[in-house]
Amino acid sequence: MQFSKGHGTENDFVVLPDPDATLDLTPARVAALCDRRRGLGADGVLRVVRWAALTDAPAPVPGVEWFMDYRNADGTVVEMCGNGVRVFARYLAHAGWLSGGETPVGTRSGVRVVRMDPTSPDGEISVDMGPAIVGESSTASVDGAFFPGVAVDVGNPHLACVTGHDIAALDLTVAPGYDRALFPHGVNVEFVSPLVAAGGGPDGELTMRVHERGVGETRSCGTGTVAAVVAALRDTGRHTGTVAVHTLGGRLRVTVEAATTVLHGPAVLVAHGELTRSWWEAAGQEPARVSS
Amino acid sequence: MQFSKGHGTENDFVVLPDPDATLDLTPARVAALCDRRRGLGADGVLRVVRWAALTDAPAPVPGVEWFMDYRNADGTVVEMCGNGVRVFARYLAHAGWLSGGETPVGTRSGVRVVRMDPTSPDGEISVDMGPAIVGESSTASVDGAFFPGVAVDVGNPHLACVTGHDIAALDLTVAPGYDRALFPHGVNVEFVSPLVAAGGGPDGELTMRVHERGVGETRSCGTGTVAAVVAALRDTGRHTGTVAVHTLGGRLRVTVEAATTVLHGPAVLVAHGELTRSWWEAAGQEPARVSS
Repeated sequence: MQFSKGHGTENDFVVLPDPDATLDLTPARVAALCDRRRGLGADGVLRVVRWAALTDAPAPVPGVEWFMDYRNADGTVVEMCGNGVRVFARYLAHAGWLSGGETPVGTRSGVRVVRMDPTSPDGEISVDMGPAIVGESSTASVDGAFFPGVAVDVGNPHLACVTGHDIAALDLTVAPGYDRALFPHGVNVEFVSPLVAAGGGPDGELTMRVHERGVGETRSCGTGTVAAVVAALRDTGRHTGTVAVHTLGGRLRVTVEAATTVLHGPAVLVAHGELTRSWWEAAGQEPARVSS
Repeated sequence: MQFSKGHGTENDFVVLPDPDATLDLTPARVAALCDRRRGLGADGVLRVVRWAALTDAPAPVPGVEWFMDYRNADGTVVEMCGNGVRVFARYLAHAGWLSGGETPVGTRSGVRVVRMDPTSPDGEISVDMGPAIVGESSTASVDGAFFPGVAVDVGNPHLACVTGHDIAALDLTVAPGYDRALFPHGVNVEFVSPLVAAGGGPDGELTMRVHERGVGETRSCGTGTVAAVVAALRDTGRHTGTVAVHTLGGRLRVTVEAATTVLHGPAVLVAHGELTRSWWEAAGQEPARVSS
C-alpha cells in the first residue's frame, strides 16, 4: 500500500495511488488513515484513480484521464476541495502522470482544469473553481457582535463578511450565528478584512479566517477563499480582479472573472512511503471510528 | 531522509533511523516533522542512533548498542517515554538491528531493558521502567470536586488518585488543581478506578485517565500507567502485582516488583517512507514553530 502525504496551505491529505481502482478503501480504512494518532493523520484521503476504471462515479468525460476520489476524515465522499485538487495535481506531476502544464481532473462536481509547471516542485498551481454566485445580504454573529455579509455559492454555501474589526481577535471556537432560514443546510462563514492595495495581487490583498460547517475553524478553505475575494471586491464596487489572500495556513491568490473563478496556491508533498501490511489489514477489520 | 511512523496506545512518533548520527536534527525540523498539518504529525521524534556515535549524550555503557534520542513535538529533549521505547524497539526489530529478545536501550535517564519476540510483528513488548517511589498523600481537584491520591515518582512526578467517581465523566479540558508546594515543578495527575478482579492481569484490572503537565489530557502515558497501578495496588493493601490498565488509547499491563516496575504493551508501525528533499530542506530553514 503506497501513499504520499501532502498539504495545501495546511489543509492536509493522504494521497493513495490506485490507477486501476483495485483498492478496498472502506470508510473504516479512510478513518484509520486520517486518524492523527493511530494512522497517518490528515483532513482527508485523495485516491488517484483512472476515471475509466471507476464504477461508482459519474460517467467518464472523454480526454479526462484522472479522477480525484476525495473522502473526508470521517469516511464520507466529498465532491471537491480547492486545496486538495492542487495536492492531487502535484502528485500526478511527481508520479510522471502529467502530460502537460494544463490538465483536466475529474471530480464528483465535474471536470476542473489545473494549470502548473510540471517541472517545478515548488511552483504555484492554479485551479478553475467555477463561477461564484452572489446571493442575498445576511449577517453573522460572534460573541454578541454582528457582522454584515453576503451569501456566496461556490458549489457550497458561504457567508462572507467584510469587516473592519480585528479579525485575529475573534473567538471562532464556537460556531458563528447565522440565519437558518437562508442557510437551512448550514454555511461556511468567512471574516474578511477590507481590500488594501499594497502587495500581493494586482488588485490588492486581504486577510481572512474561516469557520467551516461541521468542522470548526480551519487553517484554510479553498472555496472560502474564493467567496472572501468575491465579497471584498464587491465591497469596493468591483466584480472582477485578482487578490492575494492571507489565511492561517498560508497565502493564496484568487482571480474572479466574469464567468468563473481561479484559485492559485501552493501544494507541498511532504513524504512518500508504504503502509505496513499488518496495519492496513487491521484497519480493514475495525469498525469506522472518527478521529478527534 | 527515511522515516517510520508508529504508535504505542496512540502515543505516536516519527522514527528517524540515524545509526551514524549524521542527521542535522534541529528543533525547527523536529517541530516541522511533528506538525500535524505541515509535516508528518506526531507527539515526538525518536532518533535511532548508535550510542557510540553520539557526542551530546551520556557516555555509552558497554554492551548497549542503541540509544533512543527522544525529542518532544516542541523540539525539546526528553529523557524517557514508556510508550516511545516500545515503538523504538519495534523499529529495531523491523530494521533487523535486534540481536535477541532482550535488548538494553540507552536513554537520557539510563539503560532500559526491553523484552519482545523479535519475530512477532504484533507481540507485546515489555520495558523495565525502574522503581516507582511512593511519596506523600495529596489531593487533586476537578471542577470543585476533590480526589484523594498519592504522590508517585516514576522518574517524573505523578499524583495518582484512586476514586469511585465515574472517571469517564470528568472534565479534564482544564488542568486539575494540586498542591503546588508538594509539586513545585507541576505534576501528572491520574484518575484511577479501584482494582477489580475480573479479566486482564492476574491481580485485576483498572481504568485510568491522565492529565499530563504542560500537555493536557493524553490518550495514554507510560509512567502514568505505572503510577496508577502502584496506587491501585496500595489501595487494596498490596505492594506488588500485575494489573491490566485500560487507557483511552488502549490496553497495557504493569508489573510492580519490589525493586522495579515493568510496562507491557503494544507497539504498532503504521508506515515506512522517505521525506521529500524539498520539504526537509525547507523545514531546516524555518524558525521553530510549535504545532497546535
